[in-house]
Amino acid sequence: MINDLTPIATSTRADIVEIRIREYLSNKKLKTGDTLPTELELAEALDVSRNVLREALSRLRMLGLIETKKKRGMVLSAPDILGSFERVLNPQLMDENTMKDIFELRLVLELGMADLLYLRKTDKDIAELEQIVKKDKNADAEEFRISQEIAFHGKLYEITGNNTLKRFQTMLMPIFGFVLSNSHHSIKSGVSHSDLVQILKNGDRDSFSDAMREHLRPHIEFLKER
Amino acid sequence: MINDLTPIATSTRADIVEIRIREYLSNKKLKTGDTLPTELELAEALDVSRNVLREALSRLRMLGLIETKKKRGMVLSAPDILGSFERVLNPQLMDENTMKDIFELRLVLELGMADLLYLRKTDKDIAELEQIVKKDKNADAEEFRISQEIAFHGKLYEITGNNTLKRFQTMLMPIFGFVLSNSHHSIKSGVSHSDLVQILKNGDRDSFSDAMREHLRPHIEFLKER
Repeated sequence: MINDLTPIATSTRADIVEIRIREYLSNKKLKTGDTLPTELELAEALDVSRNVLREALSRLRMLGLIETKKKRGMVLSAPDILGSFERVLNPQLMDENTMKDIFELRLVLELGMADLLYLRKTDKDIAELEQIVKKDKNADAEEFRISQEIAFHGKLYEITGNNTLKRFQTMLMPIFGFVLSNSHHSIKSGVSHSDLVQILKNGDRDSFSDAMREHLRPHIEFLKER
Repeated sequence: MINDLTPIATSTRADIVEIRIREYLSNKKLKTGDTLPTELELAEALDVSRNVLREALSRLRMLGLIETKKKRGMVLSAPDILGSFERVLNPQLMDENTMKDIFELRLVLELGMADLLYLRKTDKDIAELEQIVKKDKNADAEEFRISQEIAFHGKLYEITGNNTLKRFQTMLMPIFGFVLSNSHHSIKSGVSHSDLVQILKNGDRDSFSDAMREHLRPHIEFLKER
């Protein structure tokens, strides 16, 4: 499709050096904790100035791929895979298609997490959910309704016990909020937060899965208009 | 939990300048296409050297947050939200917990995507899936089996029509492959790729959802051991 074509970005020297170093790490099969050549060695091998090299290294440091250790010099580190993602997630700078993609992604995650919930839920989790839904009946004001949405669904992500999933959701929250406050739902769901908690407490995985789908139905219907 | 505590990273001047500029963009509610102050203005306002400023700007350029336009100078751009994520996804540099998180994330996505599939599947998609599963019966060799897994499940992501989801999956593939080739499943699934295609073709969303869960059951059982 022609709208998948994006202009070729003009590469700076730092772009190229950054790519070369990443290729080098990959090809050499270097692992976390391994030492990198010195700045001088790298600059000579790549035939670039120290300034350009430092710019590229600064980027890799930002991504958490390298760190400088006392006495040992530069070593490879396990990057925080969501750290750089977090840096660019700004709803104001996001195009509409990406926003919609992310909103759908949220629905897919919540429709698919029942197994993890049933595998890892504890009595304490259920008690916390019950506390959260108690406040639902006061949720008339739009702003309060959104904060209740975030508290309830956020707690579900937490119960999955999957730290990457949980952090992912924390980052995407501003976008969910943005989409929620811009959507007008004439369709009402027949399943409330409170119903979901009761099923998670006493019902089985399949009933929960069906109930969650019914709970999210207004959003799923909304997708059909896309 | 104490294992959630990570050492406080030592910040360089470029780290701080990068954060300040991102805060500035956010606070000023700048949008895509808006012009940034010049390098000189920024260096003076932040009271830092041009070198440090350039290092920070280089990082933002790498993230796709700013670009330099002829005659207009630096402008804000819509970042490629997955671009920087892609840069750090290297299974060799990933710790075991993150790998497991990502493997679970994949299961959650595939268990939750039935609605998108039923909303967007076309006859052409089904025909392509049928082509893919034809080769399944030859999939004795481990390596070929993994490539069939990737082809089949990859096509499902494509059918969702969600570009972010699809790219996400492409990036995570090396990790899925890594986990797959390291896992030993004594449990066999009762539902094959070919069964799934037939249900997607002729069955309803609920039957597909149940069948997908049965197809992924060996992996779900594997989670219980975690």
